[in-house]
Amino acid sequence: MSSSQFDDFSKKCKKILENQLRICIDELQAPSILKESMLYSLEAGGKRIRPLLLFATLHAFNKDPNLGLLPAIAIEMVNTYSLIHDDLPSMDNDDLRRGKPTNHKVFGDANAILAGDALLSYSFQLIAEASEQSISLEAKVSLIQLLANSSGAEGMVGGQVADMIGEEKNLSLEELEYIHVHKTGKMLTCSVLAGAILADASEEQMEYLQQFSHHLGLAFQIRDDLLDVVGDENLIGKPIGSDVGNHKTTYPSLLGMDRTKQVLSEQINFAKEALKKTGANTILLEEITDLVATRNN
Amino acid sequence: MSSSQFDDFSKKCKKILENQLRICIDELQAPSILKESMLYSLEAGGKRIRPLLLFATLHAFNKDPNLGLLPAIAIEMVNTYSLIHDDLPSMDNDDLRRGKPTNHKVFGDANAILAGDALLSYSFQLIAEASEQSISLEAKVSLIQLLANSSGAEGMVGGQVADMIGEEKNLSLEELEYIHVHKTGKMLTCSVLAGAILADASEEQMEYLQQFSHHLGLAFQIRDDLLDVVGDENLIGKPIGSDVGNHKTTYPSLLGMDRTKQVLSEQINFAKEALKKTGANTILLEEITDLVATRNN
Repeated sequence: MSSSQFDDFSKKCKKILENQLRICIDELQAPSILKESMLYSLEAGGKRIRPLLLFATLHAFNKDPNLGLLPAIAIEMVNTYSLIHDDLPSMDNDDLRRGKPTNHKVFGDANAILAGDALLSYSFQLIAEASEQSISLEAKVSLIQLLANSSGAEGMVGGQVADMIGEEKNLSLEELEYIHVHKTGKMLTCSVLAGAILADASEEQMEYLQQFSHHLGLAFQIRDDLLDVVGDENLIGKPIGSDVGNHKTTYPSLLGMDRTKQVLSEQINFAKEALKKTGANTILLEEITDLVATRNN
Repeated sequence: MSSSQFDDFSKKCKKILENQLRICIDELQAPSILKESMLYSLEAGGKRIRPLLLFATLHAFNKDPNLGLLPAIAIEMVNTYSLIHDDLPSMDNDDLRRGKPTNHKVFGDANAILAGDALLSYSFQLIAEASEQSISLEAKVSLIQLLANSSGAEGMVGGQVADMIGEEKNLSLEELEYIHVHKTGKMLTCSVLAGAILADASEEQMEYLQQFSHHLGLAFQIRDDLLDVVGDENLIGKPIGSDVGNHKTTYPSLLGMDRTKQVLSEQINFAKEALKKTGANTILLEEITDLVATRNN
């Protein structure tokens, strides 16, 4: 697949996703300020890497990506809620995200907390309410279990708490990995495995996809750490060098730049090897992997 | 049923519930501060009226209350998360709840937000992970749909946002009812209907139980408003007269005390009439209704 073919796939998926996001919020019978606040952050854009991973996994098993539309929306809502809460004054206290004022800057702290809460509940509702023709009862329950586990205390929220505990502390490589595997990795893995559940992948294939997304998640975070040292502020949308300023433990601070780049390339290789073992048509997932390794924002 | 028999039922259910709450948190593989923070608020007690409604509904259909243990836990987790977030400085800014320091006073604002988030995700996970012997796939999906809808933008969170918008404004009776039906009523209705789903109640019975819980929810809130005027501070655990001080629209401020008491008694009668129509053995639900009408805290 040429890179322009991947671009087409990515653009088409994003368009369908963003259109459906608006419809989902529009349908809600709720106070309009709440709906505006939910939609504001859902529309703030971003790479939509989680939905793309889900769609690309369905593609790998020759399934129609549309089958995964509502689960992809659910995952994007969970990701968005976590960003809204992360940006709050009592958490990271960020005024800008992707160059736009953060949710609480526009709607106030209380509305931001509640918009996040509503997005989390809605994500489970959307999966539960999908038509049984598109998602079987068994798949719905598996998807909900996966999403709840990946987003909660044993997943993303647990990673966020560990990250807060680790701030201003010197972390070991093991502690740093725990944070990343949970804070970022679990929801990336959730996106891939959600696609695999919908595609009826075998247990063995699930296992390889789990390995793939584990390495992809680490690569994603290592690239993030590298960008904080050598990135372009205008592309990243936040000042570079903030990790050093905040005394955060990162891959470069633990391993140095050369070894960090080497580890990134190792993780990318591990990810691609795991993909090959699935025996599926994983060309889009490989493209996403390359994107993660080389991204500039 | 004598009142002491109801007390026995209530005590037994609470004991099983609180024991299982601890087990559920204990089982989590998560940072200990997060687990402590989640358990702190789960153990802060309260009337456990939502789980009791679920258990009493199962009893009405001659089903074993244990069948509803995990859904009851899930509902109590959602209720607890909402209290943690409500108490935050940017929301109601409360330092005490039921005489104990609020979650953010003990664990800090960031941990309180995250403990709430984790409780919400976990509530869906617990229903999804229940054994299929106790809850069928179909019932799980219905329960998750109900819980997500009742807790989210079209339910509790929507009511909370409407309540914030309505603060310091003179509300009509209709606006006041919208707030209460959503902020408090939806999760009470959820508790009753969850029991009905687990008990395989007929559609007609579901309809009557929905009516019952609608009136129960209004009665619950009217009693709350009355207690703020004539209650005993030591029993309520907060200063009386705070609604007047905050210029909040309440049933007494709209209707006066005499008419408010009359409306409370009407709602209780409506609730009991709906119960009778179910044809089920609703004696425990009637006891809870009387409790709501006469409670002092």
